[in-house]
Amino acid sequence: MSRFWSPIVHGLTPYTPGEQPKIANLIKLNTNECPYPPSPRVLAAIGSAVNGDLRLYPDPDSTALRQAIAEYYAVGRDHVFVGNGSDEILAFAFQALLNHDGPLVYPDITYSFYPVYCQLNDITAETVPLNDDFSLDLDAIPHHAGAVIFPNPNAPTGQVVSLEAIRRLCQRLPDQVIVVDEAYVDFGTETAIPLVKDHPNLLVVQTFSKSRALAGLRVGFAIGQPELLAGLERVKNSFNSYPVDRLASVGAIAAIEDRQGFDYDRQRIIESRTWLAEQLTVMGFEVVPSKANFVFVRHPNRDAGELAVALRERAIIVRHFRLPRIDQHLRITIGTREECTALVTALQAIMA
Amino acid sequence: MSRFWSPIVHGLTPYTPGEQPKIANLIKLNTNECPYPPSPRVLAAIGSAVNGDLRLYPDPDSTALRQAIAEYYAVGRDHVFVGNGSDEILAFAFQALLNHDGPLVYPDITYSFYPVYCQLNDITAETVPLNDDFSLDLDAIPHHAGAVIFPNPNAPTGQVVSLEAIRRLCQRLPDQVIVVDEAYVDFGTETAIPLVKDHPNLLVVQTFSKSRALAGLRVGFAIGQPELLAGLERVKNSFNSYPVDRLASVGAIAAIEDRQGFDYDRQRIIESRTWLAEQLTVMGFEVVPSKANFVFVRHPNRDAGELAVALRERAIIVRHFRLPRIDQHLRITIGTREECTALVTALQAIMA
Repeated sequence: MSRFWSPIVHGLTPYTPGEQPKIANLIKLNTNECPYPPSPRVLAAIGSAVNGDLRLYPDPDSTALRQAIAEYYAVGRDHVFVGNGSDEILAFAFQALLNHDGPLVYPDITYSFYPVYCQLNDITAETVPLNDDFSLDLDAIPHHAGAVIFPNPNAPTGQVVSLEAIRRLCQRLPDQVIVVDEAYVDFGTETAIPLVKDHPNLLVVQTFSKSRALAGLRVGFAIGQPELLAGLERVKNSFNSYPVDRLASVGAIAAIEDRQGFDYDRQRIIESRTWLAEQLTVMGFEVVPSKANFVFVRHPNRDAGELAVALRERAIIVRHFRLPRIDQHLRITIGTREECTALVTALQAIMA
Repeated sequence: MSRFWSPIVHGLTPYTPGEQPKIANLIKLNTNECPYPPSPRVLAAIGSAVNGDLRLYPDPDSTALRQAIAEYYAVGRDHVFVGNGSDEILAFAFQALLNHDGPLVYPDITYSFYPVYCQLNDITAETVPLNDDFSLDLDAIPHHAGAVIFPNPNAPTGQVVSLEAIRRLCQRLPDQVIVVDEAYVDFGTETAIPLVKDHPNLLVVQTFSKSRALAGLRVGFAIGQPELLAGLERVKNSFNSYPVDRLASVGAIAAIEDRQGFDYDRQRIIESRTWLAEQLTVMGFEVVPSKANFVFVRHPNRDAGELAVALRERAIIVRHFRLPRIDQHLRITIGTREECTALVTALQAIMA
């Protein structure tokens, strides 16, 4: 605490990202990065932009990147907003679109950055409890909601809701902004982007950090009707004119144009997820059905925190959240098949 | 306006950055970029980081970059904060450090992003008028200030204040945060960084976008005592965990280590500034004494807006602010010597 801080700062409990340790030969299954590198095509595109033009500011409107995303999703470029990672877009959305008289509603178990954004923006939040199986019932979201946000698939559970349920919610609460945070959507569920054209209250947020293997470059995007995006633009242009740098933009454009590499890698991840879930089930773990690039598991006879520590001693790190209802679960990123095998082997040794 | 926007959005008048037109052979003297490219050493360092590690998140604490900056300025690493351009750091500072009961005080003619940050954060601002010669009298800043921010050199005037005046201000207002925005400090004036050790209320903000030729990568930094930086960190970690990407970090480290290239380029810019100021004076322009990489000029017999239009017709763009007291001035970035010569030739033709 300091007399120099603005009053809002004293009440903040900042988000804690998964650690990025500098340990050699670590098997890193804690932050849901892609286990495969960006494709040679993406690296070549970035390399060709490492030149004297770096002395110049980027395009403040990221026109070329927005155009590439628009073409991929068959929407107008005026329906695309980009930012310095989807976390920045979420931060803008909380400030620009989610601060209303009614409470912001999200699941009780969800991305743990949401309550932090609420603190930063002085937003009143209300949670809806997930069902016992961690499924989310969007029909249970109350009518007095001022706005709604949820991830699909949800984090850290990996559970999904249907497009039909999202459509019903958008129709039932037509004056409230509904944000669908699709950080993990490319691993086996459907995006809500096709619903945007009929629902001016719907914003879909995605990232290049997971399925597109560019966590190191920080690019995210949102798709919504221009009326919603104008709110985001006004806040963005009151905060930082050029959040997406030249190399990040070039890399993201190449990544979204590389459809074949994208499909190949996410298919491999889905197959490894199926394999890992089977192996863990055989070992007695309860595995929440996941459509993300992670699994969320618990063992009825083993303390999750102790398992995490034991894995770490074997140079494998996974994520353990000390939060209500999930403190006996581990969230495990789907690595390469070799990494998944090493995890299973390590767990067998620990539990033997 | 939209019912979907949070109330704060309706009152925003976002900042307008200098345009980034895509016109071939344009002489771009409007956004104070460095006219020289990053050194080969910087480009090589970035190129070597274009590899598979881009799939991984950056270090959320940017430890290596903060260490490099700390070594250059001979301060502790715990005195260095980094962000996605100095604009992002300023945005965090307004939210974390500059929102107090008393008004935030800044010059009436200054960086035009400051009033925008005030709107975004609901901060009451009070301006102190520059003297008629555009000099800033820090002793005129009132005691009831809640906090203070000013650029040194000031933008868009290029005028400087002395370190002694800054020291007096820090001592006179010991409970108020004083932010010195040093975006242009490397072109002929002294940084206030050495004052930080004696003044826990002083924050110095700099950028890699001007003197270090990396506007395209978006890196800025702030130096202050850990108590101040903790406030910035709390807001940053409630907003975006990883604002500085892997390539930006590597490029900035190489840039700050390349002392020889840095000194050579800024010396060339200072020499061109002297030359350009002389030429413009000969042509009858009034040239505000500048220690920045731009000059701020007016001609007693020529409308500034018309001059800007006529220059643009000759593929030269400069910055013209339609603001009180300065709407008859032009801000002209110091380009290469060839660009400065082309500017002079064009003005001679226009005024003939």
